[in-house]
Amino acid sequence: MSIQTAGSRSRVIDITFDDTFWAPRIEINRQRTIPGIYELCKVTGRIDALKLDWEPGKEPKPHVFWDSDVAKWIEAASYSIAAHPDEDLKARVNELVQLVISVQQPDGYLNSYFTSVDLAGRWTDLRDSHELYCAGHMMEAAVAHYEATGEASLLDAMCRYADYIYDTFGTAPGKKRGYPGHEEIELALVKLYRATGNSKYLELSKYFVDERGNQPHYFDHERENRGGTPSYFEWYYNEPGRTYSHEYNQSHKPVREQDQVVGHAVRAMYLYSAMADLAQEYQDEGLAAACKRLWNHLTEGLLYITGGIGSTDRNEGFTQEYDLPNEHAYCETCASIGLFFWGHRMLKVDFDGRYADTMEQVLYNLIASGVGLDGTKFFYDNPLQSQGMHHRQTWFDVSCCPPNASRLLASLGKYVYSEQDNGIDVHLYIQNTARLQIGGQIVKLRQKTDYPYDGNVMIEIDPTQPATFAIRLRIPGWCRNAHLVINGEEQSVEAVHGYVTATREWRGGDVIVLSLDMPVERVHAHPNVRMDRGRIAIQRGPVVYCVEEIDNGSDLDAIVIPDDAVLSPVSDSQTIHSDVTVIEGTVARLDPNLGSQLYRFSTAPYVPFILRAIPYFLWDNREGAGEMMVWLRRI
Amino acid sequence: MSIQTAGSRSRVIDITFDDTFWAPRIEINRQRTIPGIYELCKVTGRIDALKLDWEPGKEPKPHVFWDSDVAKWIEAASYSIAAHPDEDLKARVNELVQLVISVQQPDGYLNSYFTSVDLAGRWTDLRDSHELYCAGHMMEAAVAHYEATGEASLLDAMCRYADYIYDTFGTAPGKKRGYPGHEEIELALVKLYRATGNSKYLELSKYFVDERGNQPHYFDHERENRGGTPSYFEWYYNEPGRTYSHEYNQSHKPVREQDQVVGHAVRAMYLYSAMADLAQEYQDEGLAAACKRLWNHLTEGLLYITGGIGSTDRNEGFTQEYDLPNEHAYCETCASIGLFFWGHRMLKVDFDGRYADTMEQVLYNLIASGVGLDGTKFFYDNPLQSQGMHHRQTWFDVSCCPPNASRLLASLGKYVYSEQDNGIDVHLYIQNTARLQIGGQIVKLRQKTDYPYDGNVMIEIDPTQPATFAIRLRIPGWCRNAHLVINGEEQSVEAVHGYVTATREWRGGDVIVLSLDMPVERVHAHPNVRMDRGRIAIQRGPVVYCVEEIDNGSDLDAIVIPDDAVLSPVSDSQTIHSDVTVIEGTVARLDPNLGSQLYRFSTAPYVPFILRAIPYFLWDNREGAGEMMVWLRRI
Repeated sequence: MSIQTAGSRSRVIDITFDDTFWAPRIEINRQRTIPGIYELCKVTGRIDALKLDWEPGKEPKPHVFWDSDVAKWIEAASYSIAAHPDEDLKARVNELVQLVISVQQPDGYLNSYFTSVDLAGRWTDLRDSHELYCAGHMMEAAVAHYEATGEASLLDAMCRYADYIYDTFGTAPGKKRGYPGHEEIELALVKLYRATGNSKYLELSKYFVDERGNQPHYFDHERENRGGTPSYFEWYYNEPGRTYSHEYNQSHKPVREQDQVVGHAVRAMYLYSAMADLAQEYQDEGLAAACKRLWNHLTEGLLYITGGIGSTDRNEGFTQEYDLPNEHAYCETCASIGLFFWGHRMLKVDFDGRYADTMEQVLYNLIASGVGLDGTKFFYDNPLQSQGMHHRQTWFDVSCCPPNASRLLASLGKYVYSEQDNGIDVHLYIQNTARLQIGGQIVKLRQKTDYPYDGNVMIEIDPTQPATFAIRLRIPGWCRNAHLVINGEEQSVEAVHGYVTATREWRGGDVIVLSLDMPVERVHAHPNVRMDRGRIAIQRGPVVYCVEEIDNGSDLDAIVIPDDAVLSPVSDSQTIHSDVTVIEGTVARLDPNLGSQLYRFSTAPYVPFILRAIPYFLWDNREGAGEMMVWLRRI
Repeated sequence: MSIQTAGSRSRVIDITFDDTFWAPRIEINRQRTIPGIYELCKVTGRIDALKLDWEPGKEPKPHVFWDSDVAKWIEAASYSIAAHPDEDLKARVNELVQLVISVQQPDGYLNSYFTSVDLAGRWTDLRDSHELYCAGHMMEAAVAHYEATGEASLLDAMCRYADYIYDTFGTAPGKKRGYPGHEEIELALVKLYRATGNSKYLELSKYFVDERGNQPHYFDHERENRGGTPSYFEWYYNEPGRTYSHEYNQSHKPVREQDQVVGHAVRAMYLYSAMADLAQEYQDEGLAAACKRLWNHLTEGLLYITGGIGSTDRNEGFTQEYDLPNEHAYCETCASIGLFFWGHRMLKVDFDGRYADTMEQVLYNLIASGVGLDGTKFFYDNPLQSQGMHHRQTWFDVSCCPPNASRLLASLGKYVYSEQDNGIDVHLYIQNTARLQIGGQIVKLRQKTDYPYDGNVMIEIDPTQPATFAIRLRIPGWCRNAHLVINGEEQSVEAVHGYVTATREWRGGDVIVLSLDMPVERVHAHPNVRMDRGRIAIQRGPVVYCVEEIDNGSDLDAIVIPDDAVLSPVSDSQTIHSDVTVIEGTVARLDPNLGSQLYRFSTAPYVPFILRAIPYFLWDNREGAGEMMVWLRRI
């Protein structure tokens, strides 16, 4: 399937969730997470830093990345306002927007750190000082703010900043041949282009992407120019086990030549997202091919079953293929959010359900886990095993993850449907009511489902008048049997590239019923994943399960799952919160009463054990939850 | 069984090995290891440091523990001379002994470091400066030198030093209430007492053992006295992951109250060895009980199947029970040598074969592994799994292990037999000819066996005249079936405390044939050892096996051992060196050709695989040996 043109991109007019899974989370995001992050931005000095009144000796000293946290909050709050009017929140957003705008310098430059803390540092440390990264996030915020409020002040300011950056960087004589050490602005510039129609921004994005990794290497050049002045993150790279290499920020070679996913995971995901955007906008087969190679490399060797990526905290990123340790998994929440973004963009480049499968895997496991049920505690790193010491926190010194998760939740409606070739693509199954523009007319869709705990999805179609178009329904990769009934008639389910397509003249009252079989599955990792050998994970539908000490006692690795043990889904409204499907079954456990002999010639006996597994995304939501484990031993 | 009195201790007049296992190793030790260590002591400055001509700025700067390496070399060389006359070696030893004696100060003090490098430091840092530790090793050397050569110059010098130490430390007014931070002198003083009959030395040993851990704590007091001066090892404790605690050197409480094996493993073993010595000498039930408690704690939760002890390099020692990681096992060679010493002494305190079982386990696995086949390369730490990066080295900065292994090999004859209650105890089965004094007469014993690869042992008894005494033969803990035939008559095998006793009037020409069944066994670790769950080790007789990449290909953890696979011993004179029994069998291996899918709902298939396991002690003796693994997955 060819790359979609920009003109055919999704047109969801509005969407409202009323399911029991996401709707409450989105409401908690609005009521607790978004106000909570604002308060923490305030308390930690991130907002006051925009007053530019820092002076030496004053604490806290602003950090180079602070503007990005403020930006992500504005973006999240804007999406929330768009989906759910909230005058108080809107007033607070607008107030903050004015403060951000006040940071802008006459030349268009807009960065609080390099305007109040390090005036001489502007553009001297692109590799580590997050200057263009912060600019990118503020551009995303500006677009969201404009779309939510119709108010263009921040958008205008960021266009001026983008113009200044355009004049500063590029291949033309007199311009700096630099590019960001932390990718982000590349995808933001595409958004800015789409919001404004100004192709300079697309061009600048393409420059940043294509300049990356060229020789002579800009970061080497920049380092020489700094002389003895260390980069902002020099202390970080000097910690034991860490060293800087160009792989860290994917600048080790030109991006079109890259076929291995390397380095810092968030950086990589933002870069690849931009590459996919540009592949779509420019119909660039070279970039599209690079994206596909990188996607395969990631999903065939670097992706945790939870949708986590980045095995180690050493580089907050990737190691070698199949190196997927569980207890020491890094799996930064932001990285999986980035993967979700990338997958969404890949659907426009290479329409295939595998991208949406990964989006779903990431969404229902890692991202859903990143925010606690009460909306005030977050995971930064998401291991697949814990001895009981790993817990969500309210904030982090580097606090990219909470506002990132918040903006995704607030904008989830953007990812359910897309429109192309005179039809609708249904990527995610979540109960909602939406209006879509298809082929010049408005179609109302009503999705009813108890997904992810139930595989039955009913979709009522209501076009303003009878119209012929295609509805493409994703058949998830985890589903072995699917049934499709339209207006009471059984249809054959022949998924092409992961979607089954129903094309007909649709009329008001038409009903699609899609039934996805959702048995409890035992998942086996590729044998090259040494850490998971002899182990299985439990999955049902898109949801990966884990066991917690609070349900199963301590020493979870003493539990073994016989291949013939029956594992059953059980609805549970008591244990954690209303409406959870847990998995139960009689399995086995090493006999804890085994005497003192350390080595023996006989097998250790097992005793029967009642297993209780909960969705991974719900772990550590109860006081005293203790140990946790995803990959369980099998016998 | 009561504690043996010192008067009944072993009297082996002489012993000569002519087996194919140890005799060649002892010869290589004499011909290559002992001269090699001398050369390295010379090259690294350890010997020249005894000239006391170091001055500031001169490199290398001596270390506080260098005297101990020289001492262990003298001790090893002396044992070797005693077992195998060697005039050149004797001359070299005597020359070095004179150099050591020249270090002695008029007051009796003898330590090269604190006489040439840090004159003000004497007795200011007992905790970390190894002063009493070096004294202890030189006392052991002096006793060995005297016994080997009859020449008393070093023994006299060390007695003068011991007298000075006696006058310096103790509970009497004016004496320091100190004791060593690295135990060793305690057991050395017992040897000095036994060699000289001077009970002051025994008394001083008992003082050091009993003073240990009392409050107010000497090491705290000493630290205050030093003011701001850091201890010798302060840099070490300040490394990430390390902190000093009194557990590190077993001074956290009085030794009689200790029931947990903690801290630095070599320190612990030397302390417990001295405690066992004192329990024997003083018939001290309190110390004996403490030793038994500590032995149980060690062997029931802290002992690797290879006889290795000390799980982590953080403290070169112990962590909690059942924490026995394989790849990151520390298992210092010296620690297991110390355990061997302790076990030998425990036999005098509590005559039970379990102590000799552990000695054998340590000897045939970890200690035999510590020295490479060519006698010039050594393991300091002995992991049970390697990704191929762990290799023997010719020397180490802290080089305690090579001379320690060398002195044990050179004195192995001391550990085969002991005499008590008018009888002979046979602890180890090694082909040899020995003369023992039993009940006033000399008995010649001839042991013929291919142990450890064959369980048949023939012992010919040849007393000078017919005499009635007991022969106690150890029935190893690993042996499920043993047969005993004396002069052609089958005997019942009823082991008491691990030994079967044959008491009769023995005459020249009497022959005992002991047959120990030696099938290939699968060993299961206690289920609390998480790292070994779902895994087995292969053992035959006392020998633990491992697999190496050179025989089995890479990715050893892809191999699985079905419970019903037949594993067979095969004699092999080709692969590594003459006369090895390897284990072979058809097992299974994960199919390496399994496509690119990272997660799937079906079990990974296995393919048949021919396994080849070699004795653990032989690993890393071939070029390109690669990965190694002891605990193999089972299905």
